[in-house]
Amino acid sequence: MAGDRQPRLLTHPDLGDVELTTVLFALSDPSRLALVRELAAEGPRTVEECRGSEPDVPKSTFSHHLRTLREAGLVTNEPLGRRRVVALRREELEGRFPGLLDAVLGH
Amino acid sequence: MAGDRQPRLLTHPDLGDVELTTVLFALSDPSRLALVRELAAEGPRTVEECRGSEPDVPKSTFSHHLRTLREAGLVTNEPLGRRRVVALRREELEGRFPGLLDAVLGH
Repeated sequence: MAGDRQPRLLTHPDLGDVELTTVLFALSDPSRLALVRELAAEGPRTVEECRGSEPDVPKSTFSHHLRTLREAGLVTNEPLGRRRVVALRREELEGRFPGLLDAVLGH
Repeated sequence: MAGDRQPRLLTHPDLGDVELTTVLFALSDPSRLALVRELAAEGPRTVEECRGSEPDVPKSTFSHHLRTLREAGLVTNEPLGRRRVVALRREELEGRFPGLLDAVLGH
């Protein structure tokens, strides 16, 4: 039954292993940058809430965007009950790439 | 005759028209990022000098990288006699995207 499904645990890279170019690429798409801005401004959001902010993006594309951000170390995507919560890894990113996120979010 | 060729004038975007995502994409390739770092550290260089720093990159790929950087407003590419000189648009970039280049070059 759907209600018995275990939430899927996704992998998150150690930021020490993430290259700057990977982060820059993840931020170079307007939809992904908008999502990062939203998470920075409003804090963690459920996947459904994130999705609601990009209603014109096809669901498969949206999932791809979330995955690209997660694999670049920009966001976590963790189960919370039956929902999933997406959060910006802001402090970790600041430690790995000082000033980068602030410079990007400032524009 | 080759010696009589007029140097080709390339177009350069007004930085006010350049989107942040375009700049981030241009910087998201390791070869392009290395070239930007080199121009930041050493000042303007001829195309041949730039090319010499990336000997393993095919010439057509290198030309594509230079074009991507120019169209993103990151570099100028201007004739100087029979040579061409590539320069980072550092002050202009700082005006348009404060802190971004320093944050990227710091890593």
